[in-house]
Amino acid sequence: MKAFREKCGIVGVYGHPEAANLAYLGLSALQHRGQEAAGIVSSDGQVLVSHRGVGLVHDVFPEEIVRRLTGHASIGHNRYSTTGASQLKNAQPLVVEYGHGGLAVAHNGNLVNAETLRAELEASGSIFQSSVDTEVLVHLIAASRAETIEDRVVEALRAVRGAYALVFLSPEKLIAARDPYGFRPLVLGRVKGAWVVASETCALDLVDATYEREIEPGEIVVISDAGLASYRVSPSTVNTPCIFEYVYFARPDSTVFGRNVYQVRKELGRQLSAESGVPADIVVPVPDSGVPAAIGYAEASGLPFEMGLIRNHYVGRTFIEPRDAIRHFGVKVKLNAQRSVLEGKRVVVVDDSIVRGTTSRKIVKMIRDAGALEVHMRISSPPTTNPCYYGIDTPTRDELIASAHSVEEIGEYITADSLAYLSEAGLYAFLGGQRGGHCDACFTGNYPVQVEDQGVRQLVLFDAKDPR
Amino acid sequence: MKAFREKCGIVGVYGHPEAANLAYLGLSALQHRGQEAAGIVSSDGQVLVSHRGVGLVHDVFPEEIVRRLTGHASIGHNRYSTTGASQLKNAQPLVVEYGHGGLAVAHNGNLVNAETLRAELEASGSIFQSSVDTEVLVHLIAASRAETIEDRVVEALRAVRGAYALVFLSPEKLIAARDPYGFRPLVLGRVKGAWVVASETCALDLVDATYEREIEPGEIVVISDAGLASYRVSPSTVNTPCIFEYVYFARPDSTVFGRNVYQVRKELGRQLSAESGVPADIVVPVPDSGVPAAIGYAEASGLPFEMGLIRNHYVGRTFIEPRDAIRHFGVKVKLNAQRSVLEGKRVVVVDDSIVRGTTSRKIVKMIRDAGALEVHMRISSPPTTNPCYYGIDTPTRDELIASAHSVEEIGEYITADSLAYLSEAGLYAFLGGQRGGHCDACFTGNYPVQVEDQGVRQLVLFDAKDPR
Amino acid sequence: MKAFREKCGIVGVYGHPEAANLAYLGLSALQHRGQEAAGIVSSDGQVLVSHRGVGLVHDVFPEEIVRRLTGHASIGHNRYSTTGASQLKNAQPLVVEYGHGGLAVAHNGNLVNAETLRAELEASGSIFQSSVDTEVLVHLIAASRAETIEDRVVEALRAVRGAYALVFLSPEKLIAARDPYGFRPLVLGRVKGAWVVASETCALDLVDATYEREIEPGEIVVISDAGLASYRVSPSTVNTPCIFEYVYFARPDSTVFGRNVYQVRKELGRQLSAESGVPADIVVPVPDSGVPAAIGYAEASGLPFEMGLIRNHYVGRTFIEPRDAIRHFGVKVKLNAQRSVLEGKRVVVVDDSIVRGTTSRKIVKMIRDAGALEVHMRISSPPTTNPCYYGIDTPTRDELIASAHSVEEIGEYITADSLAYLSEAGLYAFLGGQRGGHCDACFTGNYPVQVEDQGVRQLVLFDAKDPR
Amino acid sequence: MKAFREKCGIVGVYGHPEAANLAYLGLSALQHRGQEAAGIVSSDGQVLVSHRGVGLVHDVFPEEIVRRLTGHASIGHNRYSTTGASQLKNAQPLVVEYGHGGLAVAHNGNLVNAETLRAELEASGSIFQSSVDTEVLVHLIAASRAETIEDRVVEALRAVRGAYALVFLSPEKLIAARDPYGFRPLVLGRVKGAWVVASETCALDLVDATYEREIEPGEIVVISDAGLASYRVSPSTVNTPCIFEYVYFARPDSTVFGRNVYQVRKELGRQLSAESGVPADIVVPVPDSGVPAAIGYAEASGLPFEMGLIRNHYVGRTFIEPRDAIRHFGVKVKLNAQRSVLEGKRVVVVDDSIVRGTTSRKIVKMIRDAGALEVHMRISSPPTTNPCYYGIDTPTRDELIASAHSVEEIGEYITADSLAYLSEAGLYAFLGGQRGGHCDACFTGNYPVQVEDQGVRQLVLFDAKDPR
Repeated sequence: MKAFREKCGIVGVYGHPEAANLAYLGLSALQHRGQEAAGIVSSDGQVLVSHRGVGLVHDVFPEEIVRRLTGHASIGHNRYSTTGASQLKNAQPLVVEYGHGGLAVAHNGNLVNAETLRAELEASGSIFQSSVDTEVLVHLIAASRAETIEDRVVEALRAVRGAYALVFLSPEKLIAARDPYGFRPLVLGRVKGAWVVASETCALDLVDATYEREIEPGEIVVISDAGLASYRVSPSTVNTPCIFEYVYFARPDSTVFGRNVYQVRKELGRQLSAESGVPADIVVPVPDSGVPAAIGYAEASGLPFEMGLIRNHYVGRTFIEPRDAIRHFGVKVKLNAQRSVLEGKRVVVVDDSIVRGTTSRKIVKMIRDAGALEVHMRISSPPTTNPCYYGIDTPTRDELIASAHSVEEIGEYITADSLAYLSEAGLYAFLGGQRGGHCDACFTGNYPVQVEDQGVRQLVLFDAKDPR
Repeated sequence: MKAFREKCGIVGVYGHPEAANLAYLGLSALQHRGQEAAGIVSSDGQVLVSHRGVGLVHDVFPEEIVRRLTGHASIGHNRYSTTGASQLKNAQPLVVEYGHGGLAVAHNGNLVNAETLRAELEASGSIFQSSVDTEVLVHLIAASRAETIEDRVVEALRAVRGAYALVFLSPEKLIAARDPYGFRPLVLGRVKGAWVVASETCALDLVDATYEREIEPGEIVVISDAGLASYRVSPSTVNTPCIFEYVYFARPDSTVFGRNVYQVRKELGRQLSAESGVPADIVVPVPDSGVPAAIGYAEASGLPFEMGLIRNHYVGRTFIEPRDAIRHFGVKVKLNAQRSVLEGKRVVVVDDSIVRGTTSRKIVKMIRDAGALEVHMRISSPPTTNPCYYGIDTPTRDELIASAHSVEEIGEYITADSLAYLSEAGLYAFLGGQRGGHCDACFTGNYPVQVEDQGVRQLVLFDAKDPR
Repeated sequence: MKAFREKCGIVGVYGHPEAANLAYLGLSALQHRGQEAAGIVSSDGQVLVSHRGVGLVHDVFPEEIVRRLTGHASIGHNRYSTTGASQLKNAQPLVVEYGHGGLAVAHNGNLVNAETLRAELEASGSIFQSSVDTEVLVHLIAASRAETIEDRVVEALRAVRGAYALVFLSPEKLIAARDPYGFRPLVLGRVKGAWVVASETCALDLVDATYEREIEPGEIVVISDAGLASYRVSPSTVNTPCIFEYVYFARPDSTVFGRNVYQVRKELGRQLSAESGVPADIVVPVPDSGVPAAIGYAEASGLPFEMGLIRNHYVGRTFIEPRDAIRHFGVKVKLNAQRSVLEGKRVVVVDDSIVRGTTSRKIVKMIRDAGALEVHMRISSPPTTNPCYYGIDTPTRDELIASAHSVEEIGEYITADSLAYLSEAGLYAFLGGQRGGHCDACFTGNYPVQVEDQGVRQLVLFDAKDPR
Repeated sequence: MKAFREKCGIVGVYGHPEAANLAYLGLSALQHRGQEAAGIVSSDGQVLVSHRGVGLVHDVFPEEIVRRLTGHASIGHNRYSTTGASQLKNAQPLVVEYGHGGLAVAHNGNLVNAETLRAELEASGSIFQSSVDTEVLVHLIAASRAETIEDRVVEALRAVRGAYALVFLSPEKLIAARDPYGFRPLVLGRVKGAWVVASETCALDLVDATYEREIEPGEIVVISDAGLASYRVSPSTVNTPCIFEYVYFARPDSTVFGRNVYQVRKELGRQLSAESGVPADIVVPVPDSGVPAAIGYAEASGLPFEMGLIRNHYVGRTFIEPRDAIRHFGVKVKLNAQRSVLEGKRVVVVDDSIVRGTTSRKIVKMIRDAGALEVHMRISSPPTTNPCYYGIDTPTRDELIASAHSVEEIGEYITADSLAYLSEAGLYAFLGGQRGGHCDACFTGNYPVQVEDQGVRQLVLFDAKDPR
């Protein structure tokens, strides 16, 4: 329903007799970060075995497949993808056989100079298998003259720029890395002597792993039979983790960048109430993502919290509408407004963000159709005015309603009696008011790293025509 | 997660140019009533066209299939099934070609004399295609000498006993019927001149249909180009609708048996607080079914409502556990306990029922592992002591922990600091305290209709061995 | 390529520990009798286990399926079918559960009063599952009041008229039957104490079974742990086996109706040479069915036998022709004319029959294009002037070129320098000249049994619209 | 049945509005050269579109796929493969996107220095996608600094050694090439202004193309809108075409290396009769490959030609044998010996070659079991003593019975009354007795090109474990 989508969740395991099974469970805990494809590669110390498929984790990995992914080490990847035709070809982990043996990699993020590097590599004879930016990394590694895999990885990472949380798997080693800005989360845990790396702590929880620490921005962690070693990509790091992980992406029960997401969201809701309170009868969340902020808002305002919108969790991505159109169809297949709760009430409805405004408009109308006297929309983040280049799939700037419209105009468009966003100051209130420690480019346009590539490759045309 | 399962959801449409599309949407709104198979039959006035498949509605019905189900009338069915092998063969709607042409039927409920009737029909030469009780109905209809389809249906319904909400489709007519006890819900709505029949009002909501009324216990409604006509199966009706629809099965945004489910559940929670309040810091629901009662409990008790358990909605039915077992695995793949919410707190956890006790035990331990000081389990219904024979798939009496154990014993088993169920009196509080107007056999053992069949048919063995 | 098609091959096994495996091998030997669907039902003495699928035997039955078809008795069926939509629903063996337990049946032939019987059965309440004539038999058996399965089968067979070779399987018994005219072949064999029944002896050969005898016209053979018993459907039998089995259908290495097919075909070729010899340089068969007759013709005429047409055995049923048409396309995908063999030669080309004439016309032109000086077509059977109602799928009379055209006209149409058919007298020469002992209705119009049914059922429309 | 297998058939089309359809038909005519996978790539002058799949051509290419392969140029490939797991990954044509755009290639043959070249390429950073030798070529082309595609191809071909018939497709050009020894066949034809390249002339015949000439050994033909241009890989060529194409591989109706295969085989049979005649009653071929030689033998000897072994063309690759073994099972599923033909006869059975001897042994016993008095095996080629390294999949030397056993010993092993092979001199009789103009390494061990690679790559292990 939300037009923002996290591109990926990743996981890595070392030192467990059923490493692939742990990766599979970790990916299922991270399913919210990518629902279109999943893959796991495992190692028994000598050869890599892989399986990837289109669909949810539990569809791609029936028991007989998990059992065939033998070995004590593994990496896994969930993917969100916009390209229809070549889903499987572009699925991760990428697996290659190169001069030094097998190598697999899974990536969450986006490299901003991948096109430039690819053109250089192709000019010297490299042949690419996919259209994903991640493949540039393996060609850089293959072309490196360094002797050890960790040195080749460091050399490759020094050439790329942008956002990355990465796990590599060679037959003997698991390597995890995070870019010097720390855009995307990556945490380290332990379970019964084994190491687990994952995008969020909810993956550690499911496999009974204890949370050790974050992989640091600019850090490379190499795990092998010799234990864990840590390296640095560059001496200087900036540390601007993505604030939208708190607002929307991460699972509420995860700890990311050192804080529990549910508590942050509740705090955003409390702050929102303090900034933009309004006389009302009930507080209603847009489920599921709006629930924690709505609980916070209700607590702070003293208003009753009610599930006035019920979500249908069984619906798939697209639904077929009759030609004879149904009111609010796109929203209604997922949410139903409860007349018994809303009728005759002044309603505060809490959501985490507004993208194009079309969904919010339908929700407001649906609540009013159910008998609400007033509908006050409250958003637990500032207006989203700029696209993300660091691993989140966002609409273009033109499609973001807040990029060209004032809050008043948006409020009119969505037909709310009032609309208020959280202030930028309020967004940082939970950090003690200190700004600048996060990437908030989607709200402010302050991009920590500039995008270097230009244009759309012809390969995309090729992808689209490939009938595979 | 819950061991109680509704066996089916049904829907019927008459007089709409895209009747199958409306049935498909209605089934998707009723997906919670059956997730294992789905089917739709449509009629253009002359021939019936059908499609059934194993899986969720949006998987079984891609757009090209929905388009091929042409015609102005349709019926549909969602199914929950325990039998693995023969899922498709036993899927509904049943479609037959008999002496008077084509006929399709979809059934929610359970016939308690089906085996007896089947034996009689087979003795006179009838050949059954499936092992579902519903097939008895079509053989009775085929064997009837009555002239009209409605008379044949009435004749057949007079022979069967038990629970049924039914929709039939002949090339020319849609027929809906409900047993004289009104065990299972069935409502009637209208949209732009068309008629819609469905198990719950949430299906009407999705297709923009207005709620007209319930199909009455013992009523048969016949809809054709001549309009709507109503018949009675028998002069006397009893009206004992299933109270468990309120407690657990129905969607909270539905109106069943004349009341909004969400409000009933909140009321059960308020009542539970009044009966069994306990000093505590927070109220936490077992999501999703426990949410409304927990909100009611929190409101009545004045304690804060918190989402201390986070549900993963992406998980499938079965997950593969590593040999090296994970604590609380079966529950943990669906729920994660939040330390940041629970640590150092006295927690009231609200659920709607306890079946075997194993899940509740894991939940209690999971909450305590997350740091809770005290865990008080509160159940928004009385102890479930008896199996259902009227269309709900329940464990046997032996497996119901409350059938042989006191509340104290159960509380000890689940390791809660305290356990309280709602009293029977409390259950009826929302009805003004009046008892007897519902079937509450699962709590009381008072079965309105006796079961006549005995034993397990040999066909089940056959089913199990059939490699199809 | 040929427009005549045998509708089925059948097999039955009793008393072998891997009865389903033997049925599977027997069906593979009988694959030429039906390539569109296959099915096997096995019994372990208590329950029937079945599997059916669309495709060739080795595609429908991978090893894991064969292993699951446990038991010491089995029946199997290959099917040729014209209906696209409902292939699987109409596939055989039919399996039903009726008042006396499980029963399966596989049928080669065609019942000429099935529609009439079906209407009667439906009027008294029977519900049919398929649109195959065979299902009438199981309803008659289910409706029978006789006590034993063999008596019920006899009672049912006395009601039906037409052509049938049948195998029935109940949990305890294998029953084989042949109609009183003996239209379709059915033989009995033994292997290591087990009994095998099959349409042709080539199925016995593959499983190392020795040929015992034919099932006699009008005979019912019942095989159980008590041994083999034989019954008669009616006191009088006629014995008019299908002569087209010799001409085209049966595999050349089979013995049917007591004679080896290859030798009969060679004899037909010798006779054809004697009747219609022509000065020529080489004799060329239309492979594969024309090979034995061409060898006979070559021997009798003293002309060299040459493979002037090469067959591509890998082609499927339909091939996609470019818009810019290819000469002789429909024939060329299966046959290629060899210039090195045909150039400058006077060619006798031998085929077994001509249906519409379009294929023969393309073959003649293709041979001439390859440089032949003269093309003399010789057909090893008389002109086919009438459709078959006894189990062969033939075009309608209007489509049979010989029904309305003289041999001269056909010769002109196919552009041969000369055309000759075998005479009716010649056809019987291999039997010592005696006529009347076979059904030759396709050549003569003398139908031993009249067709009773009329019209096309509406169910076919339903079949066509069913999107399954 | 035969343990020798051709590895591939290839085809290319340029200048036809339905180029992919012609490729598809050409591949179907070449299906005998590879039945495990098929692929087509087409070009509309700008982008390449591809489809590959596992199975026969008509299964891999349904009509909707063929229609999506738009454009005026195309190449196609049939593949025989021994590797089970990675069939699709190793299927051809290979398609890559490299620095100069898209390129596809299809290969028949085997490069004898591919491993060495691959190791060099990987050492400088190339990443390989598959385990087929052909991929070396595209990496050499990608690494070339030459300006035109034809110069890059020439540069790459000068680096490889071994056997190759190749077709390349870039968006603008079709390139065909044959190694300087001319091991594998490749012919050029025309149809209505379009060019067609194919392994054998039978592919030209099916699409109505006229045979123009062979692609010469060492020749590179470049076809584009500018017409056809011819280049040479090297100044010197040797021309040693594979004699086994005549003996077994090519379709009898093809012209390869300038001669019609059927006539060559008949001549081999005549020569065999002249060299090793024996008193007998009938001549029987092992169908289908032994038929032409048997016809030649029968003509030369004056003995009758009889189809004493009938082949079942419907059987798949593997059949499941009952535990209770069947005599001659492996052969019997494909061949049945006819008692009516063989009984009481002295039989000459003609086959083209003997590999391990196990099949011949079963055939001899099967014929004797059918009543033959004497069985004389005659082979229409010399003993096969050495494996092929030029594109034929052969057993190792140890498995070739003739590598370590005399003709007498082999005759005893197969239990024939007599065994005779064609002499080497006889093999060349049809060429006027001149030897040396062909590669006959499988008979003589005279390998025109030495094998340079050693060992088995570890990648094969990886392939075998990959569960995809």
